[in-house]
Amino acid sequence: MRAVDIIRAKRDGLPLSREAIDTFVRGVSTGAWPDYQTAALLMAIVLRGMTADETVLLTRAMVASGDRVDLSGLPGIKVGKHSTGGVGDKVSIVLAPVAAACGVIVPKMSGRGLGHTGGTLDKLESIPGFRTALSIEEFLAALAENGCAIIGQTANIVPADKALYALRDVTATIDSIPLIAASIMSKKLAEGSDALVLDVKCGRGAFMKTLEEATALARSLVAIGTSAGVRTEALITRMDAPLGRAVGNALEVRECVETLRGRGPAALTEIVVRLATHMLRLAGEAATEDEAAARVRHALASGAALARFGRMVARQGGDARLVDDERVLPQARGRTPVPAPRSGVVVALDAERVGRASMLLGAGRERADAPIDHAAGIVLEVAPGDEVRAGAPLMVLHHNDARPIDEAGRLAAAAVTIGDHAPPSPPLILDWIRA
Amino acid sequence: MRAVDIIRAKRDGLPLSREAIDTFVRGVSTGAWPDYQTAALLMAIVLRGMTADETVLLTRAMVASGDRVDLSGLPGIKVGKHSTGGVGDKVSIVLAPVAAACGVIVPKMSGRGLGHTGGTLDKLESIPGFRTALSIEEFLAALAENGCAIIGQTANIVPADKALYALRDVTATIDSIPLIAASIMSKKLAEGSDALVLDVKCGRGAFMKTLEEATALARSLVAIGTSAGVRTEALITRMDAPLGRAVGNALEVRECVETLRGRGPAALTEIVVRLATHMLRLAGEAATEDEAAARVRHALASGAALARFGRMVARQGGDARLVDDERVLPQARGRTPVPAPRSGVVVALDAERVGRASMLLGAGRERADAPIDHAAGIVLEVAPGDEVRAGAPLMVLHHNDARPIDEAGRLAAAAVTIGDHAPPSPPLILDWIRA
Repeated sequence: MRAVDIIRAKRDGLPLSREAIDTFVRGVSTGAWPDYQTAALLMAIVLRGMTADETVLLTRAMVASGDRVDLSGLPGIKVGKHSTGGVGDKVSIVLAPVAAACGVIVPKMSGRGLGHTGGTLDKLESIPGFRTALSIEEFLAALAENGCAIIGQTANIVPADKALYALRDVTATIDSIPLIAASIMSKKLAEGSDALVLDVKCGRGAFMKTLEEATALARSLVAIGTSAGVRTEALITRMDAPLGRAVGNALEVRECVETLRGRGPAALTEIVVRLATHMLRLAGEAATEDEAAARVRHALASGAALARFGRMVARQGGDARLVDDERVLPQARGRTPVPAPRSGVVVALDAERVGRASMLLGAGRERADAPIDHAAGIVLEVAPGDEVRAGAPLMVLHHNDARPIDEAGRLAAAAVTIGDHAPPSPPLILDWIRA
Repeated sequence: MRAVDIIRAKRDGLPLSREAIDTFVRGVSTGAWPDYQTAALLMAIVLRGMTADETVLLTRAMVASGDRVDLSGLPGIKVGKHSTGGVGDKVSIVLAPVAAACGVIVPKMSGRGLGHTGGTLDKLESIPGFRTALSIEEFLAALAENGCAIIGQTANIVPADKALYALRDVTATIDSIPLIAASIMSKKLAEGSDALVLDVKCGRGAFMKTLEEATALARSLVAIGTSAGVRTEALITRMDAPLGRAVGNALEVRECVETLRGRGPAALTEIVVRLATHMLRLAGEAATEDEAAARVRHALASGAALARFGRMVARQGGDARLVDDERVLPQARGRTPVPAPRSGVVVALDAERVGRASMLLGAGRERADAPIDHAAGIVLEVAPGDEVRAGAPLMVLHHNDARPIDEAGRLAAAAVTIGDHAPPSPPLILDWIRA
């Protein structure tokens, strides 16, 4: 089967056969397809789309391009989690120990962030000593002991996705629900969980800007998981303002600890509780939603979740004194408040601008090989709906030397819209998608 | 201007600015754009299209990527010619000396064939000694002396087109009217003529299968030429059956000589006369169509066109005895007739199958660097509408050793449909497109 014929078929809007999709993914993985043929097919897929069946076949072929983690040696139902990502999204770091404290095994593999702020791995690595590069054997041992572990993807998980993503990034072929869904689900399926909960972010600070797009992606993700025999459910959650008050790696870990103590921001806590509730149900740890939610709230209130987090940190080499003393985290030398230009009510808080400002301070990276400043970031002092007085701080920039503080400050200030009337407060959880 | 932003704009269906198009073409010519970004943009152009303005800008940028031939030293109006190509299309070889014999200067640069049969250069090179690789100085001298010369494109004519075409061929991005039109017109404009006549082939044996496609291409070509200040007109001519009876390089040259003697096939003669008529009018050599047509017919009938052809052949190093004795052309050792399987009327004669059979015999090439057998090819003994008896020859294969004669014969036989009733005979010239 020639590459040019496969490209032509998709160009003409025809669905690709299993053989065509396997040929493509194998060509990408082995390097047999030159990048220009892959790029042409990717653009044809972006513009012509893929059917649900094609997307399932693409995902399967991508999973088959590399290793699949074997979790069958661990007793019980393993439940994975994935978020499509947003500014201040630190849910995984709280959720894994919460669910584990309730008896769920949570084998979490995460990516490194590219863009606004660090990814989950970067956040965890702001804890002195914390290791995310565990071997599979260490990962399994940690899961057996604590029920949760968060590590980086091992080298040979879905190599086809790495090759495709690198090319999509430079050919404007990121924006395609089938390609996004296959990329996400191939990695989650290769991680070997029995069930999956997904957090599809929707709004100005998310990749999916509209509820229609977010719903389409969520449905595709759930369909792929279900067809692979993995029970999959997706929440669609609002991401207009940042999630929580902290944006930046160590700052977010500190907020995670607060949340595990039961004193976190309401929105973050709400999403954690809701996702953990679904995880308990999927794992058979609770018969009803109400029972699951009660157990989750108890794990937070009792300190069981925080203790579990401490054990996870220790098991992965991190300084577990963190659970009692957040001063073990790195702190930036400089603190610069961003004052409110007028009095009024915070009408909007643009997550994307806050994220970009935080990247300017060193909390995120523009290139995959750029270093990250774990201490840098932004702590919000206000949320949409809050009243402010002129000159009062809207947020505080945390920064070290040699950063464009003024530019970051202007960008951060522009993220806040102050008006005269409180905005409507739409629900945080927009939908729940199941098979 | 970043490549990925230009690709994204076209992906989203936006027209590209002059700056974007210039950046793209310069990137392709200099190699600054990696092939995968070019391939992604090409696919986006195929699926999103280009406006008439964008196509003009693309063509201009492509012309500017290389040298432009300066014909201004030659007195009079120079009229170029281009055909989109079809099986048995030998029009240029007859047309150039016919128009030159009527006082038009015809500076013809041609391509080499890839596919069914050779291109104009391959056909001419079947004449012993004929040189198509003249320098620009030799080309200008030949034009000054004889009014016509047919040469290969010089190395630096539209280098962007060479790079783009190589990539389009392997990424299924050939089929795009803006890309085809810009490719054709960039080369014709770089050749420096004052006016252009175009022969857009339409039908089963042509690249444009429908009249709608052919008309769209012809209109685009004429619009580009006109916007560049070059008077441009296009005929749309039918290409279902091969044009003329000979398919294959030396065989076609022989048919050209017959046509220049006034004894050529009716369809070939009709297209030559019609195109030459337009060329005379565009060159100001005749006031009316009727006067132009009368002069063209006289050039054929008087032997003036044949004599001009002989001078062109001699000037380019070829054996000019050809005009009196066609035996100077190479001849294949083997002749194998293809018999009619039944009696009846020839209902259809599939140009594409005849072309593929002729390629199997060695008359065409599948790869750009493949050798060509100048003597090989097919001479048709019948045309659509002819009655045939079972066993009588439909055509004769001309071949040398080591060729799959049986396979070529089966393919050639399958090209002929014999029925009981004569088919309708649609017009040869389907339309005439002017600005």
